[in-house]
Amino acid sequence: MQDDSEVAVLRLGHRPGRDNRMTTHVGLTARALGADRVILDGASGPAETIEDITERFGGPFEVEVTGSPKGVLRNWEGVVVHLTMYGERVQDVEAEIRERHASGEPVLVVVGAEKVSFDVYEAADWNVGVTNQPHSEVAGLAVFLDRLFEGRELDREWEDADQHVVPMPTGKKVVPTEEE
Amino acid sequence: MQDDSEVAVLRLGHRPGRDNRMTTHVGLTARALGADRVILDGASGPAETIEDITERFGGPFEVEVTGSPKGVLRNWEGVVVHLTMYGERVQDVEAEIRERHASGEPVLVVVGAEKVSFDVYEAADWNVGVTNQPHSEVAGLAVFLDRLFEGRELDREWEDADQHVVPMPTGKKVVPTEEE
Repeated sequence: MQDDSEVAVLRLGHRPGRDNRMTTHVGLTARALGADRVILDGASGPAETIEDITERFGGPFEVEVTGSPKGVLRNWEGVVVHLTMYGERVQDVEAEIRERHASGEPVLVVVGAEKVSFDVYEAADWNVGVTNQPHSEVAGLAVFLDRLFEGRELDREWEDADQHVVPMPTGKKVVPTEEE
Repeated sequence: MQDDSEVAVLRLGHRPGRDNRMTTHVGLTARALGADRVILDGASGPAETIEDITERFGGPFEVEVTGSPKGVLRNWEGVVVHLTMYGERVQDVEAEIRERHASGEPVLVVVGAEKVSFDVYEAADWNVGVTNQPHSEVAGLAVFLDRLFEGRELDREWEDADQHVVPMPTGKKVVPTEEE
């Protein structure tokens, strides 16, 4: 997010077709909740959808497709947080992660699709559980980012948007960005 | 959640097949993040998966399938919160919703799949945006519940679980519940 050190989200283990929608939701959640970049493991379909949303609703937000997610993990210069139901409780470790991020270290948040191989657990600085219950990588990512940024992501400003939503008690209002 | 007034999640507009996975994630997120019940619009496949997880990892958590989601909405005695990117900003309205819940009113959180009809916007006491950006109903639900419960859901206890995860810095540890 602007003025912060980078937060990127790495989506592992995308299975083309089957995982398209979940991977798209991971990417859009990363964008909406303050990450600067999403890196997708060979998922060009979802990448296009996410880029299209950024085009229309603003950024900055980058989408990358990689053929070597393990390379991204290995070469990351900063903190690696792997979200998994087997990890340490988010409420126990979030303050320390926040501190590392605030001190200027880029954070890579890793979310898997199905089974994640053991070397990812080993490569991570923290394996973190948003609850130790089975639920959704999208939900885990959302809660983690909201806690990492302590809600500041909800007030971020969007640049180069064609349009934006005006919050309303009832109904829908979308206006071209120039006309406000 | 135990000792609180009820929080239920109503999933609207499920399209069999196409939405199975998202609806399952909505239900599992509701369970993991402190809701007491999920009500699914004619989605019996996802209902079975969510019940199976509750069987293994504990509850209390109820799964219902309805043929009349609008009836559920109409007859709800308590507060109705519809999560939508067009709604008021969560950071602006969450305190008031939290207060109503704390004063003993049951809360129904409504999440749609695709397009939600206008009468839902009108039936809701609050239309709430977890950001006014397009992302994921699963992410919106997760952040909303975490804020409604102010993190207390992360410490909830699970009853009648066959097994549970022991949080670990690295690796996976799942133990039968008796043996701890």
